Amino acid sequence: MTKSFQWADYVRPHLRGLQGYVPGEQPQGGKFIKLNTNENPYAPSSLALAAIKESGERLRKYPDPTATAFRQVAGQVLGVSPDQIVCGNGSDEVLAMVVRLCLGPEDLAAWASPTYLLYETLIRLQGARWQTFRYRPDWSLPEELFRANAKLTLIANPNSPSGTCFDLPQLRRIIERIPGPVLIDEAYADFAGQSAASLVRDYPNLMVSRTLSKSYALAGLRFGYLVAQEELIRHLHNIRDSYNCDALSIAVATAAMSDQAWLRDNLRRVIEQRQVLERGLAELGFSVQPSQANFVWCRHPGGQAQSIYMALKSRQILVRYMNYGPDAEGLRITVGTPTQNQVLLEQLHQIVKSIP
Amino acid sequence: MTKSFQWADYVRPHLRGLQGYVPGEQPQGGKFIKLNTNENPYAPSSLALAAIKESGERLRKYPDPTATAFRQVAGQVLGVSPDQIVCGNGSDEVLAMVVRLCLGPEDLAAWASPTYLLYETLIRLQGARWQTFRYRPDWSLPEELFRANAKLTLIANPNSPSGTCFDLPQLRRIIERIPGPVLIDEAYADFAGQSAASLVRDYPNLMVSRTLSKSYALAGLRFGYLVAQEELIRHLHNIRDSYNCDALSIAVATAAMSDQAWLRDNLRRVIEQRQVLERGLAELGFSVQPSQANFVWCRHPGGQAQSIYMALKSRQILVRYMNYGPDAEGLRITVGTPTQNQVLLEQLHQIVKSIP
Repeated sequence: MTKSFQWADYVRPHLRGLQGYVPGEQPQGGKFIKLNTNENPYAPSSLALAAIKESGERLRKYPDPTATAFRQVAGQVLGVSPDQIVCGNGSDEVLAMVVRLCLGPEDLAAWASPTYLLYETLIRLQGARWQTFRYRPDWSLPEELFRANAKLTLIANPNSPSGTCFDLPQLRRIIERIPGPVLIDEAYADFAGQSAASLVRDYPNLMVSRTLSKSYALAGLRFGYLVAQEELIRHLHNIRDSYNCDALSIAVATAAMSDQAWLRDNLRRVIEQRQVLERGLAELGFSVQPSQANFVWCRHPGGQAQSIYMALKSRQILVRYMNYGPDAEGLRITVGTPTQNQVLLEQLHQIVKSIP
Repeated sequence: MTKSFQWADYVRPHLRGLQGYVPGEQPQGGKFIKLNTNENPYAPSSLALAAIKESGERLRKYPDPTATAFRQVAGQVLGVSPDQIVCGNGSDEVLAMVVRLCLGPEDLAAWASPTYLLYETLIRLQGARWQTFRYRPDWSLPEELFRANAKLTLIANPNSPSGTCFDLPQLRRIIERIPGPVLIDEAYADFAGQSAASLVRDYPNLMVSRTLSKSYALAGLRFGYLVAQEELIRHLHNIRDSYNCDALSIAVATAAMSDQAWLRDNLRRVIEQRQVLERGLAELGFSVQPSQANFVWCRHPGGQAQSIYMALKSRQILVRYMNYGPDAEGLRITVGTPTQNQVLLEQLHQIVKSIP
């Protein structure tokens, strides 16, 4: 009987040929200067690291299912109620939960492109429909997005790869023009010095996702959360894994979030170096998009972005080459430490010089 | 426009009234002797705790997406290839991934009841169909399960609440009689001194899920994994969150799995105390099911299980009261330390004595 068993007969049809999301390269060895996946160049808060101690008893028992301690601190920081927060195993899981809650096979998700590639993967996994509309040349939203009548509209703010950001008055106008649920993905918002989290008070259709991976230097921790009105948060609690966040992550995330002095200092240093990077890249002839994130999106006028990426990689420097079509092909470079940025710019200088 | 916004219009119909899985009580304060959720009574391996050190750099960067180090160690321990393993955020996430991969709205899952209550929650979340068939009085599988023709058959082995376990020859016969995918949930299998993991070589339709929550004393870590043939594992990699396990969890899980001497010692201690508990409960007049897990399922001949549970709770001792119908109402009591078990038996003695 088992002789004729084939997994292809049992895997759901829309998932059979699916390729999973491919994250940026994560070399586990080697001595790369790693500026390709927007990790923070500095170590996390020492309070966060100290929270790991005395962990034997914490690990032996099941964690707090709703990460109460974290939600209390985050609520204070963002000016929302802890009941307006649900935590997840990275903001990726939070996004997946929203997609599972709202989108059936006939339902439409929409976003402006280019943006975070995971959105398409999540919709494909769910077997739902999606439409994308090109950002305008100035990275404002295309009119079609407002008319898409989607069951879920996704907006990364700041956006990747552009690093551009709508301010809060702009966001209000955007949210008011979209009748259905709107998710603002704030993975990089701390670097822009703003958050739409407190706007959930005014907009029942608004969700704001956030992560500790970038501005808190905790990409390895997998901790993110969503802010929205209580009704939606209750729905998400019902559908998430009952213990989706582990005890160590909750402890570290809570301590990190408590250390706002560390955050301010980190943001200052990253933003300072972002300017160094933007200026340096412009001087080398790149077309640079002013960034409000912890990375810089730049295009090479000669269209040599891919070969520059390869040349950097051969010099042990990883950046992200992205090709979203002829008008959006370039390099997304994470802001590193002063030394890393210096080495990058020096190597780029040599590489660019040698291009005919 | 947003005035008339209602989440009920956007939440998928089958999820609107859904209640999430309710785990056993997890009091965050108080001085409970906690014997209700099958946590291990002893601290995890000191190697596991040591693995948390030097975590700053590990936390700053994204984790290894596939937890290679863990899969290598687990593969050696279980006698399977690392390519036959996919890791998850607890075995709960692993189960959810399998359900999402295999079950659409028309597809059927089946299991014998009573068993782990999460199975039904996962199928409800997916909007799929399910059928359950009552275990026979001797906790063997009902014939109907073999004829259900399900797209996914779930068997907890050892089972909860019964603590009963099919041995490997029995499991082979079971798997050979089920034409579709069979998932053996081995959350408690270490306490039975066996694993079906190496059987995946012979059965393409077999999946074996395992967790570090119970036998490795790491319930707070949320780390589980699935063993199956490579074809299925590849499918699961495509649909899982790209960084579903965090860097600390991977490090701790890998170190814990490497410390098989700790595991042997822990199993010896828990099994010894399981016998103490079984004997003590029988002497108090309970009908006790011999257990191969780290808990004991016992029924009170006077049908007073619920009031006994309440009386224990008022004495700061938490056990799990379960009512699966008149022939399966009882207490599931986790094996604690010698002291905890002693206190439990003494208090039970007083409580039972006072029942008319």
